[in-house]
Amino acid sequence: MSKGYEVWEERQMEKGIDVERVKEKIKSFKVETPSWGYGDSGTRFKVFKQAGVPRSLFEKLEDAAQVHKYTGICPSVAIHIPWDKVDDYGEVKEFTESLGLKIGAVNPNLFQDDDYKFGSVCNANPEIRKKAVNHMLECVEIARAVDSKILSLWFADGTNYPGQGDFRDRKHWMQESLAELDAAMDDDMRMLIEYKFYEPGFYHTDIADWGMAYTFATKIGKKAQVLVDLGHHPQGTNVEHIVAFLLDEGKLGGFHFNNRKYGDDDLIVGSINPYELFLIFNELVAGACDPWTKETAENVAYMIDQSHNIEPKVPAMIRSVLNVQTAYAKALLVDRELLKERQLNGDVLGAEAVVREAFEIDVRPLLGKVREEMGLAPDPMKAYLESGYEQKKLERGIGGKGWE
Amino acid sequence: MSKGYEVWEERQMEKGIDVERVKEKIKSFKVETPSWGYGDSGTRFKVFKQAGVPRSLFEKLEDAAQVHKYTGICPSVAIHIPWDKVDDYGEVKEFTESLGLKIGAVNPNLFQDDDYKFGSVCNANPEIRKKAVNHMLECVEIARAVDSKILSLWFADGTNYPGQGDFRDRKHWMQESLAELDAAMDDDMRMLIEYKFYEPGFYHTDIADWGMAYTFATKIGKKAQVLVDLGHHPQGTNVEHIVAFLLDEGKLGGFHFNNRKYGDDDLIVGSINPYELFLIFNELVAGACDPWTKETAENVAYMIDQSHNIEPKVPAMIRSVLNVQTAYAKALLVDRELLKERQLNGDVLGAEAVVREAFEIDVRPLLGKVREEMGLAPDPMKAYLESGYEQKKLERGIGGKGWE
Amino acid sequence: MSKGYEVWEERQMEKGIDVERVKEKIKSFKVETPSWGYGDSGTRFKVFKQAGVPRSLFEKLEDAAQVHKYTGICPSVAIHIPWDKVDDYGEVKEFTESLGLKIGAVNPNLFQDDDYKFGSVCNANPEIRKKAVNHMLECVEIARAVDSKILSLWFADGTNYPGQGDFRDRKHWMQESLAELDAAMDDDMRMLIEYKFYEPGFYHTDIADWGMAYTFATKIGKKAQVLVDLGHHPQGTNVEHIVAFLLDEGKLGGFHFNNRKYGDDDLIVGSINPYELFLIFNELVAGACDPWTKETAENVAYMIDQSHNIEPKVPAMIRSVLNVQTAYAKALLVDRELLKERQLNGDVLGAEAVVREAFEIDVRPLLGKVREEMGLAPDPMKAYLESGYEQKKLERGIGGKGWE
Amino acid sequence: MSKGYEVWEERQMEKGIDVERVKEKIKSFKVETPSWGYGDSGTRFKVFKQAGVPRSLFEKLEDAAQVHKYTGICPSVAIHIPWDKVDDYGEVKEFTESLGLKIGAVNPNLFQDDDYKFGSVCNANPEIRKKAVNHMLECVEIARAVDSKILSLWFADGTNYPGQGDFRDRKHWMQESLAELDAAMDDDMRMLIEYKFYEPGFYHTDIADWGMAYTFATKIGKKAQVLVDLGHHPQGTNVEHIVAFLLDEGKLGGFHFNNRKYGDDDLIVGSINPYELFLIFNELVAGACDPWTKETAENVAYMIDQSHNIEPKVPAMIRSVLNVQTAYAKALLVDRELLKERQLNGDVLGAEAVVREAFEIDVRPLLGKVREEMGLAPDPMKAYLESGYEQKKLERGIGGKGWE
Repeated sequence: MSKGYEVWEERQMEKGIDVERVKEKIKSFKVETPSWGYGDSGTRFKVFKQAGVPRSLFEKLEDAAQVHKYTGICPSVAIHIPWDKVDDYGEVKEFTESLGLKIGAVNPNLFQDDDYKFGSVCNANPEIRKKAVNHMLECVEIARAVDSKILSLWFADGTNYPGQGDFRDRKHWMQESLAELDAAMDDDMRMLIEYKFYEPGFYHTDIADWGMAYTFATKIGKKAQVLVDLGHHPQGTNVEHIVAFLLDEGKLGGFHFNNRKYGDDDLIVGSINPYELFLIFNELVAGACDPWTKETAENVAYMIDQSHNIEPKVPAMIRSVLNVQTAYAKALLVDRELLKERQLNGDVLGAEAVVREAFEIDVRPLLGKVREEMGLAPDPMKAYLESGYEQKKLERGIGGKGWE
Repeated sequence: MSKGYEVWEERQMEKGIDVERVKEKIKSFKVETPSWGYGDSGTRFKVFKQAGVPRSLFEKLEDAAQVHKYTGICPSVAIHIPWDKVDDYGEVKEFTESLGLKIGAVNPNLFQDDDYKFGSVCNANPEIRKKAVNHMLECVEIARAVDSKILSLWFADGTNYPGQGDFRDRKHWMQESLAELDAAMDDDMRMLIEYKFYEPGFYHTDIADWGMAYTFATKIGKKAQVLVDLGHHPQGTNVEHIVAFLLDEGKLGGFHFNNRKYGDDDLIVGSINPYELFLIFNELVAGACDPWTKETAENVAYMIDQSHNIEPKVPAMIRSVLNVQTAYAKALLVDRELLKERQLNGDVLGAEAVVREAFEIDVRPLLGKVREEMGLAPDPMKAYLESGYEQKKLERGIGGKGWE
Repeated sequence: MSKGYEVWEERQMEKGIDVERVKEKIKSFKVETPSWGYGDSGTRFKVFKQAGVPRSLFEKLEDAAQVHKYTGICPSVAIHIPWDKVDDYGEVKEFTESLGLKIGAVNPNLFQDDDYKFGSVCNANPEIRKKAVNHMLECVEIARAVDSKILSLWFADGTNYPGQGDFRDRKHWMQESLAELDAAMDDDMRMLIEYKFYEPGFYHTDIADWGMAYTFATKIGKKAQVLVDLGHHPQGTNVEHIVAFLLDEGKLGGFHFNNRKYGDDDLIVGSINPYELFLIFNELVAGACDPWTKETAENVAYMIDQSHNIEPKVPAMIRSVLNVQTAYAKALLVDRELLKERQLNGDVLGAEAVVREAFEIDVRPLLGKVREEMGLAPDPMKAYLESGYEQKKLERGIGGKGWE
Repeated sequence: MSKGYEVWEERQMEKGIDVERVKEKIKSFKVETPSWGYGDSGTRFKVFKQAGVPRSLFEKLEDAAQVHKYTGICPSVAIHIPWDKVDDYGEVKEFTESLGLKIGAVNPNLFQDDDYKFGSVCNANPEIRKKAVNHMLECVEIARAVDSKILSLWFADGTNYPGQGDFRDRKHWMQESLAELDAAMDDDMRMLIEYKFYEPGFYHTDIADWGMAYTFATKIGKKAQVLVDLGHHPQGTNVEHIVAFLLDEGKLGGFHFNNRKYGDDDLIVGSINPYELFLIFNELVAGACDPWTKETAENVAYMIDQSHNIEPKVPAMIRSVLNVQTAYAKALLVDRELLKERQLNGDVLGAEAVVREAFEIDVRPLLGKVREEMGLAPDPMKAYLESGYEQKKLERGIGGKGWE
C-alpha cells in the first residue's frame, strides 16, 4: 500500500494537486448515518427479517458506533420519531456521547398513523393537520433535548387518483403547517424540506420536486432549506444541476444519499451510478471554493438514507459511507483552474476530460493513507468483518425493530 | 336514459354500426377479479387496514360474487396460493359454484417465504429452486381440484446489485423450472408467464420484459403464453404494440389490468390513462376480427390485478370492471373498414380520427341498455352502494386477510 | 345533430349544469396558433417537404386565417424572429388585421445562429451574450410595432457533457440577460419563460424545469411568468399539479400545447393522452373560479406549438384547436361543488368519479350547437376540407419556409 | 508512467490476475468507427457546420485512418449507403487497404428518401416496400464489392399517431422484407437487426425493442442477429441483462456504442454513465469465457455510432474508442472465480464488491503499457492533437458531407 501511495502522490503532485490540502479536506468530511438503516426494511411484497437487527434505539446507536469506529467519519446519527421514541432523551444523549457520537437530524414520521391515510399536514381534516403539526412540534422539543439542530421533513402526503384532492388547498395547508413549525423552532435550527417524485402517492405528491420544496422554503425564510434525496427524481434528471442551482440560491440544506436505477430503490449510494455521485460532489466542492456559495456549501448536511433489504446492515452502511467518501475524494482532485479555462474557451472535450480524469483516478491509495494518518485501518470493511461484531450481533436474534 | 339510448343508437346506425352485434359482444365479455383484490394491501410505508375486509377465501368469494351480481361480467375469481390455501378444495369449488362463480387462474406465490430472499426458481441454491418448483406443481394439483385451466406465473426473482447474480445461470434455472412445470400440466392447461420491469428487484428482474417472457414461452411450447400486466413496463412503452405483436405470434395469454402513472402503482384500471386502455382493446378487437389471430384473441384471459390501498375494495373493483367494459365497448365502435382504407391511403389524420372518434363516444347509454337487457341495474355502482352490503361487511371488523 | 343536442342539454340540466354559462365560456375561449406550425418541420433524420407550405409570413397568416375562419377561436398568431422577420412590420399589422387576426406572442430565436453553438444568453463569451440580449431587445421593438404584449422565451442553452459548462456561471448570465430584457419592456408587456427537460442540450439545459423558470421569473418580478410546454417534462410528471402550483403563485403565464409519448415529440395536442389535457384544463377552470387565482387564470396565454412532420399542416392545426376546445368544454362540466364536498369527506372514489365523468361526456353535440350559434359550420374540419383551400394552397409548390 | 505501471502490475498480480493474458486480450480487441461520425450532424434545431469536415468517403476514410493510427484498434470503417455511395467500389476497397483499413458494416439508409415518409419496408404501399428491399439488395452487392460480411439494419419505420398504421400488417411486411434480404445474402454474411424505442416515429416504432428484433431474427435463422445501440432503450433499462440474454440465445450480433442521458442522445460512449458501459463489457467478457456463449461473444461486432454535434469529430472519435477500451480492460480484471463463488453463496455485498472493485481500478498505466508494446504513443489523444492533422483538415473548409 505504501509504495502504491507514494507513486500515487507523486503523480498528483506532478499535476499540481496540493495533496496535503486534499487529505485535510477528507479528514474533516463527515456523513451521518440513520438509525433506521440498521433495522429491517423491505418492499411491499416482503420484509426479510435479518438476525441481529437492533431491538432498541440504543442498539442502533451501538451499530452506528461501529460504522464510525471503522470509517472515522460518521459521528452523528439521525433519528426517526416515533420509531426511536423513548421516555428519557437525556439518557439517549448521554449514551450517544458515551459512544463518541451525537444525535443528528430528527425525522418526524407523518405517514404511519392510521389518521394519515389521506395525508398529514395536507389532510382535508383540520384536526389531523393539527395532529401532524403537533408531532412536528414534539420533534422540535426532542431536538432540543438531544441537542440537534436539524429537522428533516419528509411528507408522504399525496393522492392516488385525479380529483381525490385539491392541489391548491393542500398547498396552502402545507405552507401554514411549515409556518407553525418555523415559529416554534429556535433561531439556530434548520428545517430541511424533502421532495419526492412519487410514492406512496401514485397520482400526485404534495412536494413533488425541488421547485416546490424551494418555493415553500423561500416563503419560510432563513430557517428553511431543501433536502435532496438521490432517489426522488424522475428518470434522467440532472441532479448535479439542481444541486448547483440550490447552492447558488443558498437553499441547499442537505442530502439523503442512496442510489436507484428505477424508482426510489434506496440502494447503497454509488452502487448503480458512481459517476453521478461524483458529479454531485464536483458541484459541492466547486461551491465550497466560491465565496458566493461557500457558507451554504459548508453547512450541507450529508446523510445516508437507504434500505438494506437483502444485504447485512452494518457492512452495507460501511460500504455506503466509503462510496460517498470516494466520490468526495475524487471531486477534490478536479483541476478547477484548468476546468474553468477550458469552459471559457469552448473546449468541450478538454473541459469534459478534466472532470472525467479525476473520476478515473483510483483513490484507494489516498484513502488508505488518510485512514492511516487518522489511526484507522486502511480497509474499514475488512477490519469490521474481522472484528467479530457481526457475529456478536446475532445474539440479538431475529425480530428487531424495523420501520414500524 | 331510454330516450338517450334511442338517440345514441340512431347516431351509430347512421354510421353503419351493427348495434345489435356490438351488444352481443358486450354481453359475452368477461373479466376475472382476484381474491387478493378484496383484502388489505399497501405500500412499503404502510398498510392501512380497512374495516370489513374478508377474513377467509370464502368471504373473498362472497365479495367477488357481489361484483358479479351488479356488473354481470365477473363470473370467475383468481386465487393466490398460499394466501388462499385451504384443506379442502372440493369445498371451495362447491361454495364458489353456489355463488354462481368459478375459480379462475391459480397464482403460485414465490416471493414471501424467507427462503426466497435471493430468488425462487432462479435461486443459486438448488434446494430452494426445487422447493419453488414443487410449489408450482402443488398449484397444478389445486388447479385440477378447482377445475381451473390457468396458472398465472409471476416471479419476483431478481437482484439488487451489479454482480449479485449471474444473469445467464439464472436464465437457465428459470427455463428448467418452467420445463418441469410444463411436464406436470395437463394438455388443456396454460401457464401464463408474467414479466415486470422492476420491483422487488431493483437492479435486474429475471423476466424483465415481454421479450424474455416470450422467449421462455416459445421454448416451452403450446402450453405457455405471455401475461401482460399494464403496470410492468418502462415509462412511455407502447403497450398496445406489444399486445398486437404477441397476438400475431399466438403468444398473448392474458392481462393483469390496473393502471400506473409512475412505477407498478396498481391503481384502478383506466383511472390514469383511459385512452391507452382503449387502444389496447382496439388491438384486441381487431385481432378477434382477423382469422390469423382470432383463436388467440378469443382465449385471452382478462384479469384485474390491483391494490386498493386507500379506497373501499368492492366499489373499487366494480369501478375497475366498468372501466374495462367501457374501453371494450368503445373499441367495438371503431369503423375497421374505414380505418383500413385510410391506413392504406396514408391518410394520417383520417385514420387517427377513426380511432379517436370511437373513444370520444359516450357509451353510457349503450351500456345501460345492455345491462337492462341482461336484467341488471343500469348503474351497477349505485345499485351496489344502495344494497347495504358495504355496511353489512363491516361486521367482519378490522384485520381481515391481506397479502400475507 | 339537433335532436342529439336537445337530449344532451336535458341530461346536463338534470345534473344542475348551467348550460348557457358553459356555452358563453366556450365562445370566449381563444387559442393562438404559431406561424411556424404552417411551415415544414421534421426530425434530425429528415424534413419531409410538403407541397403548399407558405413561402412567407403573409402566406402563413393566410393559413392561420383559415383556421380561425372554421374554428372561430384562433384570432391571434405567434411569430418567430428571424423566421418571420420582415422590413415593414406596419405592413404585417395591417395585413393581419385585414384577415381579422392580430399578432400574438413574439418568439426570439436564440438557437440557429452559428454563434449560439455553445449557448446564447448563457454563452461563456460575453459578446455572444450581448448579441442574444440585443436580439431579444429587437423583439421588444417588433412587439411594439405589431402591438403584441407577450415575449415568449425559449432558450436552447445547455451542454452536452459533464464539465462542459459551469452551471452557476450560466445561471447568473441567464438572470442578467433577463434583467436587461425586463428593463426594456413596457409595463404592460409580459415575458413568458419556457423550461425544457432536455434537447438540444443532452447533458443539461439551463432552464430545465418549472422550478428554474419560476426562480428566474420571481426575481424579475411582475413582468415575468412561466410558460408550460406540454412536451417539456420528464416521463410521468404530473403536469396539472405544476399548473395548479404556478397558478397559485400567480406565475402561470401561458402554454405551448402539443403532445408527446416519449421526448419532446411535438405531436397534435390531445392525440396521445387526452385525459391529461382535460386534467390540465380542470385546474385552469378551477383556478378561474377562485378569487385568489382568477386574474392569473384569465390571463393565461393558450398557444399551440407543434411540428406537423408527416400530416397536412392546416388540418392538423384545426384538429389541435378542436382538441383543446374539447378538453376545455369537458372541464367546464365538472361539478365543482360536489367535487369539493367529496374531497373534504375523503370520498376517494366519489371525488374521482366527479372528474372522470365529466371527461366521459361526449361534448360534440354541445360544441356543434355553440358553433351554430357563432355562425360556424358544426364540423370545422369537414367544412375546411370541403372549402377547396387545401387544393388551392398546392399552387405554392414545394419548398416553402420551414424552421430555417 | 513506467514506475506507475510496475506498481500497478504488482498489485494485480498479487490478486492473481494474469496480466500478460489481459494485455493480449486488449491488443486483439477492435472497435469499428462509422464514416458518418466524421461528418456534420446535429439536432432538429440546428446543424452546426464544422470546418474541416470530410467532403467525400475518401476523406472520411482518411480521418478514420488517423483514429486507427493513434489508437491501434480501429482497423475497419462502417459505411452508409447512399451517403457513401460511389461509382467504383473497387477503388474504395483499394484506397481503404492502402490506409491499412478495411470496410466494415454496410448500412442501408431507409429513411431519407421522400418515398419513406410513411415507412420503408413497413410502408402500406407495396411499391415502396419493393424499393426499400431493392436498396437492401443493392447493399448486399456493395458488401460483396468491398468484402464486407455485415449488413447493419436500422429501420426508421414507425408511426406518429394511434390508428395511423396497422401494427400487424406492418410486422408481416417487415418479416417478408427481411426474408427477401436473407435469400440474397451469402452464407457467410450476417444481418444485424437494430431496435429502437422511439424516434423518428413518436407513437410506435416497428422494431421497438430487443424482443421484436429477436423475434424477427429467430425466424430468419442463422444469418440474422440483433444489434444493440446503447441509446435505444427506455429509461432505466438494464442493458447488460439484455446483452447477457441475447448472448445466451446466440443472437447478439453487435453494438452501436454511444451514450445517452435522455433520449437517443448519441453522445460519446461512456461519457454519461461509464459504469453501465463497464457492466456491459463485464457480460461480454464473461460470455467469452463460457463455452456455451464463446463463439457468439467472439463474433460480436463492436461499432461506434455517435453524433458529434458540437465537439471536434476526430478527437471525439478517439475519446470514444479509448472509453470503450477502458471499459473492456476493466472488465478483464474482474476476478470471475471469486465472483461466482460469492454469487453461489448469496454473498450480496461480496459479489458486488468483486465487480465494483475492478471498475475502480485505474487502468491508464496498463493501457499505456499495452500501447507502448504495440508501438503506439501512450496517450493517443495527445499524440493526435500534436500531429497537426487537426489543423491540416481545416483546408477542407466548411460544408463537408453530413448526414445527407
